[in-house]
Amino acid sequence: MTTTPVKSFDLDALTASLEGIEIITEPSQVAKLSQDYHTFSPVLVPKLEGKVGDIVVRPANEAEVLKVAATCVKHRVPVTVRGAGTGNYGQCVPLHGGVILDMTRMHEIRWVKPGIARVEAGVKLAALDKKAREIGWEMRMTPSTYRTATMGGFIAGGSGGIGSIQYGFLADRGNLLALQIVTMEDEPRVIELRGDDVQKVKHAWGINGIITEIEIPLGPAYPWAEVIVTFPEFMAAARFGQALGDADGMIKKEISIFASPIPDYFAAFREYIPDETHAALLILAEPSLELLPGLVEQYGGKITYQKTATDAGKGTHLGEFTWNHTTLHARSEDTSITYLQSTFPADKNLQMVEHMYHHFGDEVMMHLEFTRVNGTVVPVGLQLVRYTSEERLNEIIHYHEEQGVFIANPHTYIIEDSGRKVIDPEQLKFKEMVDPYGLMNPGKSKVLEFKI
Amino acid sequence: MTTTPVKSFDLDALTASLEGIEIITEPSQVAKLSQDYHTFSPVLVPKLEGKVGDIVVRPANEAEVLKVAATCVKHRVPVTVRGAGTGNYGQCVPLHGGVILDMTRMHEIRWVKPGIARVEAGVKLAALDKKAREIGWEMRMTPSTYRTATMGGFIAGGSGGIGSIQYGFLADRGNLLALQIVTMEDEPRVIELRGDDVQKVKHAWGINGIITEIEIPLGPAYPWAEVIVTFPEFMAAARFGQALGDADGMIKKEISIFASPIPDYFAAFREYIPDETHAALLILAEPSLELLPGLVEQYGGKITYQKTATDAGKGTHLGEFTWNHTTLHARSEDTSITYLQSTFPADKNLQMVEHMYHHFGDEVMMHLEFTRVNGTVVPVGLQLVRYTSEERLNEIIHYHEEQGVFIANPHTYIIEDSGRKVIDPEQLKFKEMVDPYGLMNPGKSKVLEFKI
Repeated sequence: MTTTPVKSFDLDALTASLEGIEIITEPSQVAKLSQDYHTFSPVLVPKLEGKVGDIVVRPANEAEVLKVAATCVKHRVPVTVRGAGTGNYGQCVPLHGGVILDMTRMHEIRWVKPGIARVEAGVKLAALDKKAREIGWEMRMTPSTYRTATMGGFIAGGSGGIGSIQYGFLADRGNLLALQIVTMEDEPRVIELRGDDVQKVKHAWGINGIITEIEIPLGPAYPWAEVIVTFPEFMAAARFGQALGDADGMIKKEISIFASPIPDYFAAFREYIPDETHAALLILAEPSLELLPGLVEQYGGKITYQKTATDAGKGTHLGEFTWNHTTLHARSEDTSITYLQSTFPADKNLQMVEHMYHHFGDEVMMHLEFTRVNGTVVPVGLQLVRYTSEERLNEIIHYHEEQGVFIANPHTYIIEDSGRKVIDPEQLKFKEMVDPYGLMNPGKSKVLEFKI
Repeated sequence: MTTTPVKSFDLDALTASLEGIEIITEPSQVAKLSQDYHTFSPVLVPKLEGKVGDIVVRPANEAEVLKVAATCVKHRVPVTVRGAGTGNYGQCVPLHGGVILDMTRMHEIRWVKPGIARVEAGVKLAALDKKAREIGWEMRMTPSTYRTATMGGFIAGGSGGIGSIQYGFLADRGNLLALQIVTMEDEPRVIELRGDDVQKVKHAWGINGIITEIEIPLGPAYPWAEVIVTFPEFMAAARFGQALGDADGMIKKEISIFASPIPDYFAAFREYIPDETHAALLILAEPSLELLPGLVEQYGGKITYQKTATDAGKGTHLGEFTWNHTTLHARSEDTSITYLQSTFPADKNLQMVEHMYHHFGDEVMMHLEFTRVNGTVVPVGLQLVRYTSEERLNEIIHYHEEQGVFIANPHTYIIEDSGRKVIDPEQLKFKEMVDPYGLMNPGKSKVLEFKI
């Protein structure tokens, strides 16, 4: 990791060069737009404290992005691209100041066709979903932040979410069709990456070019119903989740399982989940709903809440209590809570889930999201951890890893230390081309020197 | 198995009671409508030789079905229900004469809604597909006979097919929503079975009531492209099939893999598959097509044929060379060929496929259909067998079973000896109620006495 101090640059000269493009210099605004939700991690908070950009630039179109890129290259100013800042690992917190490139003004939906859409990077996920549903389609997968998150932010810093039980993750071949980027060369170019080439840019936290447009496949917009099922035994709830995931004839968008006392944090649904019971929050296609009671009964559960697709559009959305919104709700009541991101080994009997559930007890509260990983239904854990110290957190992480549970550590802002483990060599090669001066989100990778 | 001879009944009195309902008595017509495609099996042919009904009855509506049922009960006449007769195990060949109940005149599509349809039993699969596509939906899965097969026949005698890589099989919870049947009681009733209760009737070869209406879930009608990929090595083709099946972000409807020389039997596609190469026949959603070349390259394959969704509607359909149509095409050139139906164990490396491929060589030509089985992508084998004797065929079957390959024997007309192994006790209980005189398709189960 580089600790080279940022080379000072002439802010006035930079500002002058950006004339005609919207900028924000008011310090409290700049500080706010230098943040994301890394506050979920007590480890990251002190490390990222005081890290702010010098100026926020808000381009309205590709021409303005090209101008910003050329200007920043000329002045050797670091550029940290951001969408809505809903990431959790400090992905868009600038380590070396410079320009915060806020893409939210570029929110045009270029087109939506059956099964495919093309959007500008600043389009909100919910906005694309709304537009696509007009013709019977929707996003294949969305994070729990989909009301505010942008498409560019999701591609650069997200991984999957609600819908991953059906389509796997963004990184899976076919879940992203094309990216358009602007390079940070002396003469910035627009490059279109299609098919497997999108791998060169995606989930790289904005170090590999400024994503300006995204072509993404859509899934059919089923009429989605929302259901809560409660269970007296946690492992029955977990195995119910696996069985529902494995039921190929039942179309589902979300299967999340929560050990007691996690549901206590869900104020909106508290009345449907009795004390000391464990809960499954489900989003199911209505044509599959009639088959649910039989499966629920098999695992000793009880359906306590059910909302039709028509009603699910109103009021509180079940999806907003899943994935990392679970952590958000827990932390809104108890800020000492943090979380893990883990993938359990494929095992229909969930032995490792059971082991961890008993091993850590109340210290690591089990929150499972069922997903497809390489064709197999497996639970991803976003366990809630009662944080005591960084040392203990690392112990918990290492214990999981030793037992064969894959951990995508959310308590680091270094790409290689999180889910990726190593930086993709293709991404590195591509970076050399598109960001020869290493100006993009510098300091987020171990292997990349911040050159200026 | 019962060998009780059929009790003679008064055909003239029966015919008189059926006045107003369409009947066929012309012997060659009756003989033709007593047949199915069990001719695929050299073992079944001699066993079913000469088995014909006495009369064919063709009801036009439910009222007529009720009248036929009452009449047959009164006269104690066996009833064998049939759709288009595209089954392969003699499911609708009457073992004890009687009435052949031809359901093909009941072909009204009751309604089609997003994700669900309700049809009469005689509706052809292709007709439902056509209607459903008008609103963007289609059948989740169809056999290769979908142009002629009827919905009732598919539910009673089929199992899955094109689409099973996405949705699993008919037997999987959620792939069938409701069945309406007419009972064979003294006073026949109409019964609606919904949800898990459909299990009491489905895939029971018409022994459990006369299916008159079917409610079935639909899948989204993607724009489907057709592709042929060739491979110099068979196992590379097979592993490509597994990898494509496991690629959660790529939407596919069909992945069939053929060892050389099977593609020699595909006259229509012969020019796209060079001698001694192995082939994958694929049906893929167009939004996933751009990602295919990368995966093909990984396994050393070559795309030799590609048809867009628009063009795929015209000319020869790739799907008509898959599943048991493969066997049909092979047998049209060489009638000594028969086939197996097998499910390989879940294993991403396909060791057992490799073992069987080498073990039997040209005697058992490998034809794989990738499917979802309980949430996991596994190959089903419809291997083509160069038939020499029943003894050798049984040896081949037993060898597979010993090695852990599940065989759904297509060379028997006994329900328990085929895929089911045992007859579902729930189905038996239900049969006692709806067919107290054991008149429905008698002789197809070991445990059911033909009582009259």
